[in-house]
Amino acid sequence: MTTIKDIATKLGISTSTVSKGINGASDISEQMRQLVLDTALEMGYIPKSMKDISRRKICILIENMSYENIDQFGYEIIEGFKRAASKKHMDVTIIPTNLSMKSSRRYDSFMLKNSYSGAFFLGLTLHDDYMAQLIQTRVPTVLLDNQIAGNPNVAYIGTENQEGIDAAVSHLAELGHKKIAFLNGTEHSMVTEERQNAFTSCMESHGLIPDENLIRYGCFLPDCAKDHVPGFLEHGATAVMCASDLIASGVINEAARLGYRVPEDISVIGFDDLPIAQYLSPPLTTIRQDRTALGQSALLVLDSLINDLSISKLLLRPKFIVRGSTGPCKAK
Amino acid sequence: MTTIKDIATKLGISTSTVSKGINGASDISEQMRQLVLDTALEMGYIPKSMKDISRRKICILIENMSYENIDQFGYEIIEGFKRAASKKHMDVTIIPTNLSMKSSRRYDSFMLKNSYSGAFFLGLTLHDDYMAQLIQTRVPTVLLDNQIAGNPNVAYIGTENQEGIDAAVSHLAELGHKKIAFLNGTEHSMVTEERQNAFTSCMESHGLIPDENLIRYGCFLPDCAKDHVPGFLEHGATAVMCASDLIASGVINEAARLGYRVPEDISVIGFDDLPIAQYLSPPLTTIRQDRTALGQSALLVLDSLINDLSISKLLLRPKFIVRGSTGPCKAK
Repeated sequence: MTTIKDIATKLGISTSTVSKGINGASDISEQMRQLVLDTALEMGYIPKSMKDISRRKICILIENMSYENIDQFGYEIIEGFKRAASKKHMDVTIIPTNLSMKSSRRYDSFMLKNSYSGAFFLGLTLHDDYMAQLIQTRVPTVLLDNQIAGNPNVAYIGTENQEGIDAAVSHLAELGHKKIAFLNGTEHSMVTEERQNAFTSCMESHGLIPDENLIRYGCFLPDCAKDHVPGFLEHGATAVMCASDLIASGVINEAARLGYRVPEDISVIGFDDLPIAQYLSPPLTTIRQDRTALGQSALLVLDSLINDLSISKLLLRPKFIVRGSTGPCKAK
Repeated sequence: MTTIKDIATKLGISTSTVSKGINGASDISEQMRQLVLDTALEMGYIPKSMKDISRRKICILIENMSYENIDQFGYEIIEGFKRAASKKHMDVTIIPTNLSMKSSRRYDSFMLKNSYSGAFFLGLTLHDDYMAQLIQTRVPTVLLDNQIAGNPNVAYIGTENQEGIDAAVSHLAELGHKKIAFLNGTEHSMVTEERQNAFTSCMESHGLIPDENLIRYGCFLPDCAKDHVPGFLEHGATAVMCASDLIASGVINEAARLGYRVPEDISVIGFDDLPIAQYLSPPLTTIRQDRTALGQSALLVLDSLINDLSISKLLLRPKFIVRGSTGPCKAK
C-alpha cells in the first residue's frame, strides 16, 4: 500500500509538501501540486478518506444537459441516482463541468484530490475532451449513453434504442404510414448514431424504404424543427419520428404553422416521455425512457465497479406509449 | 389483489379445490390443477408465500451445461449467484430441467406452484421449447447468453464477445498471423452467432481476410477438433481461435497427433479460462469470462426485475490472458 512517505521519497520532497499537494493547500505551486497528484496516481495511492467504505464520496459530472427542473431530462435521472446512493450510504456531489475545469485539471487527479470513489458522467459527446481521458482512467466511472471499449473501469448505461424505435416504426406501419421521416438529435453522439442505424434497419425490417430526404440530424431542442419540417412535407412525409419530445413539440408547432393538422395530416412521435409529453396538443405518442430507473441503474453499476465487478454495459427497456399525436395515414 | 375466493368464483368451484390446485395436492386431477393455475396466473394471483419479501424463493434452471465440479463452466456461475442471493436473504433451488418437465408443465404455472419469485436460466439454445414461453412470461427471468426482445420481465446477461474476440485477433495479428481459423461452438445459439459475426468483423478491422475454409461450427467439447483441424491445416492456418477452452484442448491434442507443435507450428486460443486452461501443455492463451461475476450479476439483475427495474441487458468485460499457446507466426 503506497504511503505519503513513499511519494515523498520518490519525488525527493518532504511529506508535508506531498500532503499539501494531495489536499489542495494553497501554499504550493500548481505545478508541484500536479506533480504530486500524478505521482500519487501512478503509484496507486489511496487517501485515508477513500478507504472508509461506510461513507463513500461519489459525484455526478454533467455537461450539455438540463436537470434543474422536473420537466427536464436529467432531473429524474439524478433523483433516482441520489436515492439509490443514499440507501448505500454514499454521499453524492453534483458538478456541472465546464471548459475551465477540463483544461486545468485532469480527471483522475481531480477525483483523487476530492476523494471521490467514482463518478456518473452525463451529457458527454463523442468529441468531448473527456473521452480521451476516460480511455485510460483508473477511476470507476459510469457513462450515460456513451461507451469506452476495453477499459474495465468504465461502464455504459442507457436504453435499448433499437427496441424503442422498432415499436414506433411498427406502430406507424400498422397505421398505414410508408413515408416516415426521422428528425434525429445532434451528430457525433453515440446515441444519435445508434438511433440512426436503428431507424434504417427497422424501416427495412418492416418492408419500408428509408428515404434519405426524410432523415436529418437536428439538435435535441424544438428549434431545429423549422429547419427540416418544410422539407419533410415537401417530400411527402406522413409521419415524423423525433429523437426527443422537445424536438417533437417543435415539429407539432411547425406543422401547425404550415397549416398541417396532427395527427390528421401528419403523425408525430417523440422520445423520452418527459412530463410535457402528455400536455402537448395533441398529447404526444412517444418512446419512454424510465429516467428514475436509469439513475438507479447507474448507481448499481457504479457500486459494482467500485467493488471490482467489471460491468461493461447495462441497458433498460424502453416503453412505447401511444397518445393522440399518431393516427391512420390518409395519403394514397 | 386477487384472492383464492375470486378464482373459485370465476371457475364456479370451491375455495378448497383452488387451494389444492395451487398447492399441488394430489387429490385433484391434473387437468383441474392446470385450470386453477392458468386462471390464477391470468388473474394475477400472488400466493401468500410469495408476498414475504424478507425470504424470497428463487431458482436456477439449467440445461445442457455441466456445473457439478469446479472445473466445469457452470460451477462458479452458480456459486457467485448463490453467494449474492444469500446476502439478500433469498433461497435458491437448483433445478436441472429435462424433457418431461418441459412437456408436462408450463413455465409460469411451474413457478407459481412452487412460489418462486424469479429464475436464472442457464444453457438455453435458440431452438429450445422454453424460448416460446419466455416471450410471454410474467415471471422475472434472467437468461445467460440469450435474449428475448420486448418482454420487460426477461433480461439477458453475458460477456462482451466482440471485445474478447477483438483482443484475441489483435494479439494474433501482432504476432504476424494472417491465416487465422475459428472453431466456433454449436450452431443455433445466440452466443455462437454473436462470436461468428465478431470474428469476421474483427478480422476485417485488422486488415485480415476471413477465409471461409477456416471458419467452422463445432460443439463446445474437445471431440469436435478432430473433424476440423486437419482441414484448417490443409488450408494453411497458422492459428486457431476456439469458442471454448475444451475445444482448444482438443485442438492442441489433434495438432500434436498430426505432428504440429503448439505454438511453434500453430497458435491456439481458447475461450472462458476454465481452471484447466493453465494446466494444459502448453498453458492456454484464452479469453476469460469472469464466471463468479456472471453469477453475481445475474442475481443483481433478477433482484432488479423482481423490484420492477426493467433491465434488458447486462454485459461484463472479458479479460484476455496470454499464456504459452500463442507465438510468432513463422509461415511466410
